[in-house]
Amino acid sequence: MPSLDAFRVALERRIGEHKVVDSPEHRMQYAFDASGLTTPYPPDLVVHPEEARDVEAVLELAERYEIPVVPRGAGTGVTGGALAVRGGVMVVFDRMNRILEVDRESLQVHVEPGVITGELHRAVEAEGLFYPPDPASLSMCSIGGNVAENAGGPRALKYGVTRHYVLALDVVLPGGTRLSLGRPTRKWVAGYDLPGLFVGSEGTLGAITRVTLQLLPRPAHVVGLWALFRDEEDAARAATEILQSGVLPRVLEFADRHSMAVIREDLPALPEEARAFLLVELDGDDPAAVEPAFLRVGEILDRQALDVRVGEGHGQMDRLWEARRKILPSLEKLGRVRSEDVVVPRQHLVELVRRVHALREASGLVITAFGHIGDGNLHVNFVAEDPASPEILPWVERLYREVLELGGTIAGEHGVGLLKQRFLPLEVPPPVLTLSRKIKTLLDPKGIMNPGKIWPEGDG
Amino acid sequence: MPSLDAFRVALERRIGEHKVVDSPEHRMQYAFDASGLTTPYPPDLVVHPEEARDVEAVLELAERYEIPVVPRGAGTGVTGGALAVRGGVMVVFDRMNRILEVDRESLQVHVEPGVITGELHRAVEAEGLFYPPDPASLSMCSIGGNVAENAGGPRALKYGVTRHYVLALDVVLPGGTRLSLGRPTRKWVAGYDLPGLFVGSEGTLGAITRVTLQLLPRPAHVVGLWALFRDEEDAARAATEILQSGVLPRVLEFADRHSMAVIREDLPALPEEARAFLLVELDGDDPAAVEPAFLRVGEILDRQALDVRVGEGHGQMDRLWEARRKILPSLEKLGRVRSEDVVVPRQHLVELVRRVHALREASGLVITAFGHIGDGNLHVNFVAEDPASPEILPWVERLYREVLELGGTIAGEHGVGLLKQRFLPLEVPPPVLTLSRKIKTLLDPKGIMNPGKIWPEGDG
Repeated sequence: MPSLDAFRVALERRIGEHKVVDSPEHRMQYAFDASGLTTPYPPDLVVHPEEARDVEAVLELAERYEIPVVPRGAGTGVTGGALAVRGGVMVVFDRMNRILEVDRESLQVHVEPGVITGELHRAVEAEGLFYPPDPASLSMCSIGGNVAENAGGPRALKYGVTRHYVLALDVVLPGGTRLSLGRPTRKWVAGYDLPGLFVGSEGTLGAITRVTLQLLPRPAHVVGLWALFRDEEDAARAATEILQSGVLPRVLEFADRHSMAVIREDLPALPEEARAFLLVELDGDDPAAVEPAFLRVGEILDRQALDVRVGEGHGQMDRLWEARRKILPSLEKLGRVRSEDVVVPRQHLVELVRRVHALREASGLVITAFGHIGDGNLHVNFVAEDPASPEILPWVERLYREVLELGGTIAGEHGVGLLKQRFLPLEVPPPVLTLSRKIKTLLDPKGIMNPGKIWPEGDG
Repeated sequence: MPSLDAFRVALERRIGEHKVVDSPEHRMQYAFDASGLTTPYPPDLVVHPEEARDVEAVLELAERYEIPVVPRGAGTGVTGGALAVRGGVMVVFDRMNRILEVDRESLQVHVEPGVITGELHRAVEAEGLFYPPDPASLSMCSIGGNVAENAGGPRALKYGVTRHYVLALDVVLPGGTRLSLGRPTRKWVAGYDLPGLFVGSEGTLGAITRVTLQLLPRPAHVVGLWALFRDEEDAARAATEILQSGVLPRVLEFADRHSMAVIREDLPALPEEARAFLLVELDGDDPAAVEPAFLRVGEILDRQALDVRVGEGHGQMDRLWEARRKILPSLEKLGRVRSEDVVVPRQHLVELVRRVHALREASGLVITAFGHIGDGNLHVNFVAEDPASPEILPWVERLYREVLELGGTIAGEHGVGLLKQRFLPLEVPPPVLTLSRKIKTLLDPKGIMNPGKIWPEGDG
């Protein structure tokens, strides 16, 4: 690839050699991500920018030399979005990881994209503030990745997803132009929602170099309830009753019978007859503020559950989350896990669980379901040798078709990336695919930004 | 305009004559909106579609005959977005006003765009549900207009704006293709956020024919506090203390000394020394849930205010809102009001109020300020013969420059429309203007959708 050499020389001259690495060992560090895909996709070159100007240089030169560019946060994505499937240059944001300003009075924070989400949580909570989105990988994932994927998490039920907190973005377009999109204001309608267009665009339109996020006052009090049920329908009914009682929990999590069977290996004290659980978190500005909801939820759970446990404060909450947190690690003992993130309108959630069980029986595969029942967002997990292995793909497709039949989506919070790309036309109709591709081409005419992601190629 | 006649004939054949009106009286009904602009802009033709197919026919034929199309909800917009400044066909959605389904279990509602926002509130509240956005015009404005403008309102402080509730949209593009964008699910990342691109696009990209909105459980209890202050800085300080105490009110409204002077004409009982007020609303799922925040806020207000009044229930709340609701009508006795909706990061709000007062002194105009202090969103009102009159425009521009200097935006919740179009380049840098225009051209190559709005012409 002679243009790659010329690109590297030109780039090193612009931003300095110490930010550009092409040793095989270093490139292999970025050949995988959390998707579980077993095929390595090493980039040809790894760049570690230290400021926005470095990113401008990369995107200017990459467009000139037509080198693919793959932005990467912490590599915790599960759909392969941060893999260099066409080679090229990987832009790793680990050195752009400063919290630039916590603006306590304006309830905002300005950050570089490489800030780890959990560190942001700690920094703002120390100031009495709160950044709600809490993807499962929060101790490792980065804000830039969260924005690129529009990450969710359990607290989305009450607080929404990353999209709801992004006020303004700096992005660099292919060609190297940096744009400041949106403003650091809670309301903003001065033109089209271009910051919103970049949220969830998975690095296919440009690279994010700065993020301004809305914060909330930190809810001082959180209480949790964990309830075991005889079957999934009891749990689902209790979840519906909670939401219809006027209470909006911040978390309402669920696990099905097959998840329970898997975690029972690691938690033998789980009663045999427990075939589903609900995990509820309630928060507010004062213990007394949470109590009425706590009593109401407790009453609903007591009526239907086999057992209910209550927790307050960090230690006790951690114990309530133990079973929920065990599901994936326990499952991973059986093989690699392809974790789907389908969503249906809540009224169809019990039906979806039924159909997932039927899929398990028909396929003979190990499939479990757990997730954010309050949102109708179910993580359906397929155990396999590889998340793209042909033994599971027809069943994944069948899951998607069932979900779409119930009015749902195949992609709730994990992105489309590489793993769902070929299935996207099941959900997205041809004219919407066409318009989306035109927007992609408008912003990235040479197709250098994260090529081979989201949009299926060659069929339109 | 021979093409207009051909268009009308073709359209009547497609959708029926009773949906197409061109009498001068009918056209004049739509020549004005709530902007206060005194120049009439009658459309050449008014269409009242009854279903999405009618809208498809209008946009197919309008593109073929190159007729401007102006979608219009209830005409309550204050920046002139629904005025036919280039003539053409106005599409009025008053007959597409059905609430199609309130899905109680999924916490969603599906509606046609002509549904009146206040009617939607009543319909979902009857089911124990809640649609938070509450623009001041809610008894008259339509959901389609709210989506097109990304409407806000006082409750945005706790609950966000229209954008945060739009899950899915049907839109018709110029040329007549109808797209279903997004899904009726609480989380969705299957491709670019095209529904989000249409929210706030002010009818310049296409016409909305169906909207799916997220709902919340209805907070059963609301309590209000109304406090009078000796000056604006005391009020602003109290607002900051409230937000930093860990409480997130649903409403935190403010009025400055000049607003107080105006309403004193109609409310002579207002004490002479009161030169600012705060209006606070707290909500929760139970009276006991609201009490701790109520006590905390009461304590903060008592410490700094001249007088504090408390209200619960509809009648008492209405009395607390009396002064707030009087501001605009009292002001309108003095002349037409150009109501700006600037926003700054909250930390600069007191400074902005100071600068607005300096502007008033320097200009000799009647200028008052009130609004959503919790969001940093201030309605700065200029009294004039016409909202576009040359006597005020230089001062409006100076306001915008002050706001931008403080890191704010010139358009928080009223859209850009016609009134702010020429000022948009003060805020939006050239490359973002260029990209936005390219997106406009991509979706609307012949420029038929609401021409002359948002994007200034002829300079880029």
